[in-house]
Order: sequence, then C-alpha cells, then structure tokens
Amino acid sequence: MKKSIGAKTLVFPTPAWVVGTYDPQGRPNVMTAAWGGICCSVPPCVQVSLRKATYSHGNITLSKAFTVNVPSEKYIREVDYFGMVSGKSTDKFKVSGLTPVKSELVNAPYIQEFPLVLECRVIETVEIGLHTQFIGEIMDVKADEAVLNQNGLPDIEMVNPVIYSPENRAYHGVGRKLGQAFTLGREI
Amino acid sequence: MKKSIGAKTLVFPTPAWVVGTYDPQGRPNVMTAAWGGICCSVPPCVQVSLRKATYSHGNITLSKAFTVNVPSEKYIREVDYFGMVSGKSTDKFKVSGLTPVKSELVNAPYIQEFPLVLECRVIETVEIGLHTQFIGEIMDVKADEAVLNQNGLPDIEMVNPVIYSPENRAYHGVGRKLGQAFTLGREI
Repeated sequence: MKKSIGAKTLVFPTPAWVVGTYDPQGRPNVMTAAWGGICCSVPPCVQVSLRKATYSHGNITLSKAFTVNVPSEKYIREVDYFGMVSGKSTDKFKVSGLTPVKSELVNAPYIQEFPLVLECRVIETVEIGLHTQFIGEIMDVKADEAVLNQNGLPDIEMVNPVIYSPENRAYHGVGRKLGQAFTLGREI
Repeated sequence: MKKSIGAKTLVFPTPAWVVGTYDPQGRPNVMTAAWGGICCSVPPCVQVSLRKATYSHGNITLSKAFTVNVPSEKYIREVDYFGMVSGKSTDKFKVSGLTPVKSELVNAPYIQEFPLVLECRVIETVEIGLHTQFIGEIMDVKADEAVLNQNGLPDIEMVNPVIYSPENRAYHGVGRKLGQAFTLGREI
C-alpha cells in the first residue's frame, strides 16, 4: 500500500544543469535549472523549462538559443549560487569568476570550466503553466578531453555531474556503476 | 579548448524510468524511458518522450494517461528488460513477475514493487521528430512508507533510483549527498 504524497514535482533523478544565454545587450547570463531532459533522438533535442519571471526566459525568447552546461561536483557552490540570484541585477560570471565562451554555432555562451556543454537552437516553445518549455535542437556537444573515455565519449564518472532532489532540495553525486544497458535484462 | 563530440543526445544525468500504460484491450504494459524530465511546477508536469514505433506510444495516444515508475537499484534487471522487448508481443508483467496496480486517478497502471510512482494525465502532445513528447500533469505522487524521511517526503537515498548514461549505455546509482540547495551558494 503506497502513501499519497500529493500532486508535486517530485521524481528522481532530476539534473542540476546551468542554462547559458545572452541578454538583449549581449551580456552572458547563467541560471540553474532542474526542470529539463532529453526529448527527441532525431533531431537530437533537450528541453529546459523556465519560469516567465526569470531573466533567462526573456533572453531565450529573444535569442532563440541556449546552452546546457553540465557541472562537475566541484562547482556545486557555483551551481547553487546561479539558482539564487537573478541576472537582471547581477553579473553572475563576474561574481563567480567563471568564464563565458561564445558559441560558434548558436547565439549563447557556455561555461569554459564545466566539463560538458550542449549548444542548442530553440525549435519549439511550449507554454505549459508557470513554466515555459524551450525545446532546443542540440547542434553540438562539447567536452573537455579529460572526461573522455577510451571510446572518445564523455564518461559520467569523469564528468561527475550533480543530481538534484526536488522538495528535499538536496544535491547528490553519481554513485557506482550498476551495469550495462541492453545486457542486464537478458537475465530476465 | 573543448572537443566537439557531435550533435548527440548526450547529457548527464538522464533518468531510467519505467512508463506504465494500458493497451486498447486493457492489458497493462511498461517500457523503460530515459528521455524525460519535469517541465512545469504549476500545474506539476513531467514529460516523457517515446518513439512512435513503441507499443506504449499507441497506448498513451488512446488512453491519454501514463505513470512514471521510479525503480530502486535492485530492479535494474527488470528496468533493462522493459527496454529490450515490446509489449506488443510480450506480457512484461507476467515475465518479470512484477505487479500492476490500477491507478484510481488516471487510466494507467503502476508497478507495486517500485518505491515511487507518478500518476499522470496527458495535457499536451508535442510531435518533435522521431520522438513524440507527452506532457503529463502529475495528479499524485505515491511512495512506499519505507522510503519516506522524517519530513514525510521520499528520500533519494532510500529510493535509490537509477541513472542512465546515453551513448555509453551504462546504469549508475546515486552517490553521496553534496549539500543542501539554496544554502551552498551563499559561500559565493
């Protein structure tokens, strides 16, 4: 018998990503977002959902572009900070000391120090309620050489991304490898 | 200098969730999905994106409902299996031995043995490309008593959910707590 917790945005895992945008004056901004996920393989797309009140929402609406910046654990303080203050009144790059890099593919900046970034072009905007969902086509994924495995792909254990727990408002790291997909299921 | 990996659905973390549906004959089905995420707070919504070729896609299109079932690590074999075979030809509940429970809120079944489930009513369908995105309003979240913390909320360390790594096709567990959100950022 399960207990009812109510109609809440409570599910695990959700990501702690940082969304990069330019404002109308061309100033780079970043904000933390946990409401996001992959939503299509062809074309490759990722969605991020932002409240209309955020500075980034206005930026994406105008620029039609954003980056998804995947932090490693060591940037957990910066990740949290980027969700606490608004780019309307604060230059978050300046305060944090992190470095904006202008994407050559989309009209948005990414964070040099983060190990994995996605450069996205908005192909659809869905007004849901408090949040607007921006569906971005992933034009490229870029990663630090240091986080690539022997297959030339970013490895989750080297990226060391951050998991967010809604409601409990906690951050966790990634744990041990449980096994390989499309393999374990053969035991059933 | 970052290395270009190409336009791929490669980001961390993505979830390993199991989506529950009824087929037109009322038979319960489940499939594993990593393309999903929260997409609105008010109303609380979660999106799951499925290929049109899947049996579950047809089921949701007709029933306008689905459940998101969050596995604990110990069901990793079942999670992987649910992504390997189609409900068109296989009764995955029967083969796995897991138990479907009829939701009283939406026209979809959830998995009794999984610690955390979301009951969702489709409020919007977005055709993106290979995948269709189903946006579900979360009508209720249900959890096993055993995974609730002292605040009466499911705790990620007790649920022990599964993280999927796209491209590398690996499953990982959740790691150690890094800290509390809206707190760590004050150090910046």
